Amino acid sequence: MPNREMTSERVRFLMTDYERGFIDFCGLKAVKAQWGRFQARVDITANHRQQDGFIHAGVMATMADHTAGYSAFTIVPEEMQILTIEFKINFLRPAFGDALVCRSQVIREGRQVIISESEVFDIRQGEEVPVAKAMVTLMAVPAKKLRDSANRSGEPTAG
Amino acid sequence: MPNREMTSERVRFLMTDYERGFIDFCGLKAVKAQWGRFQARVDITANHRQQDGFIHAGVMATMADHTAGYSAFTIVPEEMQILTIEFKINFLRPAFGDALVCRSQVIREGRQVIISESEVFDIRQGEEVPVAKAMVTLMAVPAKKLRDSANRSGEPTAG
Amino acid sequence: MPNREMTSERVRFLMTDYERGFIDFCGLKAVKAQWGRFQARVDITANHRQQDGFIHAGVMATMADHTAGYSAFTIVPEEMQILTIEFKINFLRPAFGDALVCRSQVIREGRQVIISESEVFDIRQGEEVPVAKAMVTLMAVPAKKLRDSANRSGEPTAG
Amino acid sequence: MPNREMTSERVRFLMTDYERGFIDFCGLKAVKAQWGRFQARVDITANHRQQDGFIHAGVMATMADHTAGYSAFTIVPEEMQILTIEFKINFLRPAFGDALVCRSQVIREGRQVIISESEVFDIRQGEEVPVAKAMVTLMAVPAKKLRDSANRSGEPTAG
Repeated sequence: MPNREMTSERVRFLMTDYERGFIDFCGLKAVKAQWGRFQARVDITANHRQQDGFIHAGVMATMADHTAGYSAFTIVPEEMQILTIEFKINFLRPAFGDALVCRSQVIREGRQVIISESEVFDIRQGEEVPVAKAMVTLMAVPAKKLRDSANRSGEPTAG
Repeated sequence: MPNREMTSERVRFLMTDYERGFIDFCGLKAVKAQWGRFQARVDITANHRQQDGFIHAGVMATMADHTAGYSAFTIVPEEMQILTIEFKINFLRPAFGDALVCRSQVIREGRQVIISESEVFDIRQGEEVPVAKAMVTLMAVPAKKLRDSANRSGEPTAG
Repeated sequence: MPNREMTSERVRFLMTDYERGFIDFCGLKAVKAQWGRFQARVDITANHRQQDGFIHAGVMATMADHTAGYSAFTIVPEEMQILTIEFKINFLRPAFGDALVCRSQVIREGRQVIISESEVFDIRQGEEVPVAKAMVTLMAVPAKKLRDSANRSGEPTAG
Repeated sequence: MPNREMTSERVRFLMTDYERGFIDFCGLKAVKAQWGRFQARVDITANHRQQDGFIHAGVMATMADHTAGYSAFTIVPEEMQILTIEFKINFLRPAFGDALVCRSQVIREGRQVIISESEVFDIRQGEEVPVAKAMVTLMAVPAKKLRDSANRSGEPTAG
C-alpha cells in the first residue's frame, strides 16, 4: 500500500485545479481534500434553479461527478488524469436551499478503474438535508495520452 | 391511447419553458419538440470546458437529463410537472467540438413513471459524433402538489 | 412518522416470503429483517460460478435487487407490494469465496418511490470483502393492483 | 479498423462458452453471435418466477449482463476475457410470458473499456414485448491476468 497522504502542495494544486472552466462558471468551490476524499460547496443563485424554483438536477449531477473525479485524483500519481466513464445519480428529494455541499469518497481503489461515491446535501437554515447520491466510475489515464487524443478527432481516449 | 399530438401552442410553451434558469445560464436551446421526443443544442464556449479543453461531463449530463425531462413533458397532461428520479449516463468518448446536440425519446410511457433515453452528439466540423448516452427515470407529478412541497421544508415530493 | 417497528409476525412473513421462486432456486436465504434494513446470505456452489470460477455477476445483482426490495417491504403497509423500477450495480472486485452476504437499507423513504442501497460481501475464510454495491429504485404498489395487471397482457403496472 | 468478422469456429466457441455455470443453471441459451452483437433466450419455468408470478428481475438482469458481456467478447482478441465493471437496468413493465429473448450490442468499441446495451423482450403468445433495457460497462482483460488474480485473495482484477 503506498503512502496514503498528499503533500500540502498537492492538496493546494487539486483544490485550485478543481475550480476551472465549467465548474468555475457554475460557482463550485473546493472545500477540502484528503486521501480518497474530496468536499465541495456552491452558494445557490437564481442561475442554479429551474422553472419551479428548485435547484436544477444538472447542478447536483455536475457537482457529484466533478467532486468524485477529484476524490480519485487524490489517490493517483501526479502524471495521471481522471476521466469519468459513467455515473448514476438518484435524487432523494427536491433541493431548494441556499447552498449545496458535496462529499465524495473512493470506494474502490484501482490503478486504472476507480469507483467513488458522492453525496449531495442541501443547506437549509444551516441544516444539511441529503438530496442526491451518486456512484461514479472513473478511469486514470496518463495526462500525456489524454493531451494527444484531444489533438486528434474521433478517437476514444479511455480504453 | 390518447391523441398522440401536441397543439402548436403546447409545443411553443415547452420550447420556451425548456430554456429557463440553469439551462438558460448554460446556453442550452430547445430545437424541436414532438410527441415523445425532444431535441436541444448548445454552442460551446470556454465556459463549458474543463481543465483539459474537453467539454465538461456536467454539461452533457445536464443536457441529457433536462432534454429527457422535456421528452416526458410532451406526453403528459398540461397540469403535470416532471421530476427526475434518477439517471445514468455513459460517456462514450471525449467531446471537444463546437456544439453539442441532444436527442431524447420516451421508451416507457407510464402515467406516473416515465423512462426516457438521451443521446448526446459532439458536432465536429459539421459531423455528429456520439459522445454520451443516458437512461433517465422520470415522474409525472401534479404541478399543484409540487408547488406546495416547495413551500414546506424537508418534504420529499415525488412519491 | 409511523411506528418504526415491525411485529414479529411481519418479520417472519417477510423472511419466509423472501425465499420463493427464483430466489429459492438460487439458494438465497433471509438472515435478518429490521425497519428499513434486510440481510441475506447464499452459500456458493458450482451453480453460482461462471466460466472463470468467479461468482457470476448475475448472482450478486439478483441478491442486491431482491434484498433491496425486501428492505423496502419493511417500511410499507402490509397491503403493498414492491416493484423494482431500476437498479445499478458496481462490481468492486471479483468474488470467489464460499458465501455471499448482502445488506440492504432504505436511503429514501417515500410513500411510493423508495430508494435502497445494497452492499454485497464475499466471505473468504470467514472474512467479509466488499464485492458489489447497488442503488435500487423501488415502487410501492397496492397488491390488488399488481394482481390485476398480471391477469391482463401488455399493461405496465407501476405508474 | 480490424476485420469485423468472426471465424465460424470463434462463433461456435462463444455460443458454447456462453452457456456455463450459473447461466446453464438458469437455462439461458445462446441464439446468435455476430460482430458486436449477441442474442440469447430462456424458456421460463416456475424457477424463474417470483412471489407474484412475474419473472424475477434477477433473471432479466443476469441475462442483460451476460449477453452484453458476450457481445463484447465478439470484438476482442481471443486471449482476452471480459469483466463487467457495472451495469444499470430499467424495468419497463412486468414480464410474465413463456420465454425471454435478450439482444445486446456494443455501442462503444474500446480496446479496454467496452459499452454495450441489452434489450430484454417478454414472449407472449409469440409476440415480443420489451420489458427491460440495460447499459453495461465492460472491461477487456488478458485471460492470463484474470486467472492469476483468481488464485490470490483480495486482489482487484480489472484496473
